[in-house]
Amino acid sequence: MEIEEALRRAYEAAAPEVGRGRPAEYIPSLASVDPDQFGMAVASVDGGVHVVGDADTRFSVQSISKVFTLALVVAAEDARIWERVSREPSGGPFNSLLQLDQELGRPRNPFINAGALVVTDRLQSLTGGASVALRDLMREESGRADVDWDPVVAKSELEAGHRTSAMAHLLASYDNLENPVDQVIDQYVTQCALSMTCRELALAGLFLARDGVRADGSRLLSARQTKRINAVMLTCGTYDSAGDFAYRVGLPAKSGVGGGILAVIPDRGVACVWSPALGPSGSSAAGLAALDAFTTYSDWTVF
Amino acid sequence: MEIEEALRRAYEAAAPEVGRGRPAEYIPSLASVDPDQFGMAVASVDGGVHVVGDADTRFSVQSISKVFTLALVVAAEDARIWERVSREPSGGPFNSLLQLDQELGRPRNPFINAGALVVTDRLQSLTGGASVALRDLMREESGRADVDWDPVVAKSELEAGHRTSAMAHLLASYDNLENPVDQVIDQYVTQCALSMTCRELALAGLFLARDGVRADGSRLLSARQTKRINAVMLTCGTYDSAGDFAYRVGLPAKSGVGGGILAVIPDRGVACVWSPALGPSGSSAAGLAALDAFTTYSDWTVF
Amino acid sequence: MEIEEALRRAYEAAAPEVGRGRPAEYIPSLASVDPDQFGMAVASVDGGVHVVGDADTRFSVQSISKVFTLALVVAAEDARIWERVSREPSGGPFNSLLQLDQELGRPRNPFINAGALVVTDRLQSLTGGASVALRDLMREESGRADVDWDPVVAKSELEAGHRTSAMAHLLASYDNLENPVDQVIDQYVTQCALSMTCRELALAGLFLARDGVRADGSRLLSARQTKRINAVMLTCGTYDSAGDFAYRVGLPAKSGVGGGILAVIPDRGVACVWSPALGPSGSSAAGLAALDAFTTYSDWTVF
Amino acid sequence: MEIEEALRRAYEAAAPEVGRGRPAEYIPSLASVDPDQFGMAVASVDGGVHVVGDADTRFSVQSISKVFTLALVVAAEDARIWERVSREPSGGPFNSLLQLDQELGRPRNPFINAGALVVTDRLQSLTGGASVALRDLMREESGRADVDWDPVVAKSELEAGHRTSAMAHLLASYDNLENPVDQVIDQYVTQCALSMTCRELALAGLFLARDGVRADGSRLLSARQTKRINAVMLTCGTYDSAGDFAYRVGLPAKSGVGGGILAVIPDRGVACVWSPALGPSGSSAAGLAALDAFTTYSDWTVF
Repeated sequence: MEIEEALRRAYEAAAPEVGRGRPAEYIPSLASVDPDQFGMAVASVDGGVHVVGDADTRFSVQSISKVFTLALVVAAEDARIWERVSREPSGGPFNSLLQLDQELGRPRNPFINAGALVVTDRLQSLTGGASVALRDLMREESGRADVDWDPVVAKSELEAGHRTSAMAHLLASYDNLENPVDQVIDQYVTQCALSMTCRELALAGLFLARDGVRADGSRLLSARQTKRINAVMLTCGTYDSAGDFAYRVGLPAKSGVGGGILAVIPDRGVACVWSPALGPSGSSAAGLAALDAFTTYSDWTVF
Repeated sequence: MEIEEALRRAYEAAAPEVGRGRPAEYIPSLASVDPDQFGMAVASVDGGVHVVGDADTRFSVQSISKVFTLALVVAAEDARIWERVSREPSGGPFNSLLQLDQELGRPRNPFINAGALVVTDRLQSLTGGASVALRDLMREESGRADVDWDPVVAKSELEAGHRTSAMAHLLASYDNLENPVDQVIDQYVTQCALSMTCRELALAGLFLARDGVRADGSRLLSARQTKRINAVMLTCGTYDSAGDFAYRVGLPAKSGVGGGILAVIPDRGVACVWSPALGPSGSSAAGLAALDAFTTYSDWTVF
Repeated sequence: MEIEEALRRAYEAAAPEVGRGRPAEYIPSLASVDPDQFGMAVASVDGGVHVVGDADTRFSVQSISKVFTLALVVAAEDARIWERVSREPSGGPFNSLLQLDQELGRPRNPFINAGALVVTDRLQSLTGGASVALRDLMREESGRADVDWDPVVAKSELEAGHRTSAMAHLLASYDNLENPVDQVIDQYVTQCALSMTCRELALAGLFLARDGVRADGSRLLSARQTKRINAVMLTCGTYDSAGDFAYRVGLPAKSGVGGGILAVIPDRGVACVWSPALGPSGSSAAGLAALDAFTTYSDWTVF
Repeated sequence: MEIEEALRRAYEAAAPEVGRGRPAEYIPSLASVDPDQFGMAVASVDGGVHVVGDADTRFSVQSISKVFTLALVVAAEDARIWERVSREPSGGPFNSLLQLDQELGRPRNPFINAGALVVTDRLQSLTGGASVALRDLMREESGRADVDWDPVVAKSELEAGHRTSAMAHLLASYDNLENPVDQVIDQYVTQCALSMTCRELALAGLFLARDGVRADGSRLLSARQTKRINAVMLTCGTYDSAGDFAYRVGLPAKSGVGGGILAVIPDRGVACVWSPALGPSGSSAAGLAALDAFTTYSDWTVF
């Protein structure tokens, strides 16, 4: 089936899920988003972009940013980050603090909060400004110079962030932060507060489907580095439902509590879906259904 | 690179790892295997089989059997097994009993021991003889009518199996076994005691690379069912190192403590490697290195 | 206040709690007990026994038996049992299997199920018949030759005992059982199935208030051994509510799911209360209230 | 045996343990203390004080302060603190963060760090200056107006305190702190940095052996409140070795990483021992041996 047709049918198939579940509620600016919005975009490696629904409405990317932060660190110094972060699924949120403690301050993977703090910390050391470096990458890959973070979201997260602070201090107690705790947290919440559309995110992630080659033809990552980031996304990208996501969708992907999901189809393209209401797994309910349907119709899957 | 050449070079690249680590030691018949053996076989969907090293020596398949047991159950009744078993990575062995307890007797995935006991229990209910059903499948797919289990291995496992008994009784306490505990354990250890060569296992698993089609052209699984089993292998097939395995090798795979690893390259073929000495992750050290090298040389990877 | 008066007033104070909560339900013979029964007995070191309510009705002693099993083992070989069992509070049931696993098969204390299995196993090795040895002690100390176990209760427990079997097999996997798993379980459930009255239990436990001296004037335990068993009762005797029990009652005590609680007041006497309905902590709700009131009125407390 | 004689013999019996183990090393000012110091003091309810060894050398009281903070809060508002803190043994340090998380921010007991932070927070709300209130109590009970905290120790703890910060932020994430995180931590480390001698501490704690009556004859706590604090000390006062401590010593006690241990013998007196080298349980090795011997010789035990 043509991509455009598969996209349209997936959108229709997932429509009944829109609004099921609830937007993230821990900060007001996420909780107040209209839950009935729903958009999809697919960017192909050949240059085409197909969109449907609210694909040009900006939303809070939240944890989707973690893939790009990781890419920037790997681009700068290849595999060194793995000395400080593992790449195994965490097996559940219930023990995240316990796990970090038992594993002596080495987070399970770069996509759980503890791991993302370490990656952000490293990017901060490498660039002197992690969130600016990330924003610049997003602007360049998406071709939109006005991509930026939402200061209200960032500030809300800082204020609601006792749990993030607990995690960061625990990392620091194991000497796994190079920069001051408050600075790392500040950079971290700023990155998560980036506001982008489905179209922009799909374009921004295209290097992951193109063996590491950026929009301008230059290389951000080697083919091997790119495959490896995709592998980590597949096993760890959707929190505690990575196994179920692989079973249903079969693609490397990263979700965020803003309701977005970015999925990579190596050598083919990148899909980004967004709908704010989250299902029990913490990922967008409609987004998950849409990706499930899209891979069925398009046969874009890695398995 | 040609498959044959990639296989040869991978064999050479991994040779220094042969004998590193130690064979499984919990039962004498595994502990006494010569650790310097090393074989590889690749069966292509087009019918060709390439082998190198000790690819025609039989070894104890152990947990590799779990993929085939699962396939038989899914073939018989599609997705029903997922009501009794989840499909998420377990996040580590340290909490396997805790996890089973906290999740009210529903194992994390079909490849940890608790999950495999449930799958075996279901196959036993469906067939009246789980281990015979599995052996028959192995014989038919490998084309070797003398494939069989090693009664000495099976008996040793029964005797060493207090931990397996603890797990099975815990499952029973949550009403997640249909058959008597002792019967399930007996079927389970018998399956694990199957003795096969790399060549035979690669051929036996070929339906996983062929969208579910068996050696005789009949269909065991639908394409969708096959993709899903491959997805579960990728996220859960190599114990607590599934994330690292995906990062390094990038293929759905299942390892066993006998030193074998079976890896599926969808639409292309199946690789089976074997060398008895196990690395820290519990999978064959040389086997892991060989698959890592093979996917690099052949570019057979899903990412 | 006189003991008799304190006993009467405690009985009245606790009366409103009788029937609150529910009897243990995991086996029919416990679940069907009339929850409105309530008895108390206090045996003084000076020989007097005071009773009130259903103090002469037999009930299933269940875990109260564990104190006596431990006493017999300590009497036979002093402190050797502590090489196989620790004496720390477990900190909660949720992790009992995890804890046993992390602590390499050494149970936290002799009063959780895992620990009691080890103590029973040792008594079995020492006597060749653990449950008979325990019954004999109970008969001699209570002065009632017809004290016996209830075979229906014992059989029910065996049948409902997958969780106990899981625990025993886990102990065996760590070589912390000397006798066959099934034999240990059989002895264990038989001990728990002893049927006794409040009066009989208070008399049977009197050696714990008398520095180890038995009813016939002979010595079962040294003064030091007795104090130590009392200390373990205080820190570990009431499951996960040992801290709250010490706070409220302030006495070494052991409760059982049959609704009985045995409490020791060193150098003064032993109290036994019974009412089948269990509160949220797994101990008799009315029994707990009665002991709380009794220690307040009598000023019999260790603090 | 006379107290003075029991004290002298206990001192001699424990002498070989002096210097065994190591002083706490997480901050320089504790690590650099001469490990060969050893003092004991016993204050009797009848007014006498007996001392031996380095009983008049000041040391860092650390967690011993937690008993007094709790007493001040209970004195001010009786049992209300138990709505925010439980009173059960924690069952081990390994899961302290997990436990706090699973129990929704309610610490297991007032003597683990998380619980002490909550008690300090409450005292801060009640007094506007928790550490000053505590210092005043210590001065008045010990009769020494120059008792004070060591600012170097307090500052070191603040700097080394990422783990304490993690705990405090986790409490705050569950709304279980009333004051700002940094303020609570500051008060907490200041209290722990109090510097006192064995003699001063034994005198300061005497109200715990006198049913709540202070040095000046006024009442700090009711008899019931005092018994209850003693009960919590017995079940939770010596970290993860409370069970073993009760077994060996049989007294309510609180230890600190400065090497001090305070033990209460209700209606008789208070013992304080100090020697900086800590054994595997985190309490003073010589101090533990000395208390074990002292209770044996004096027969001052609660059991």
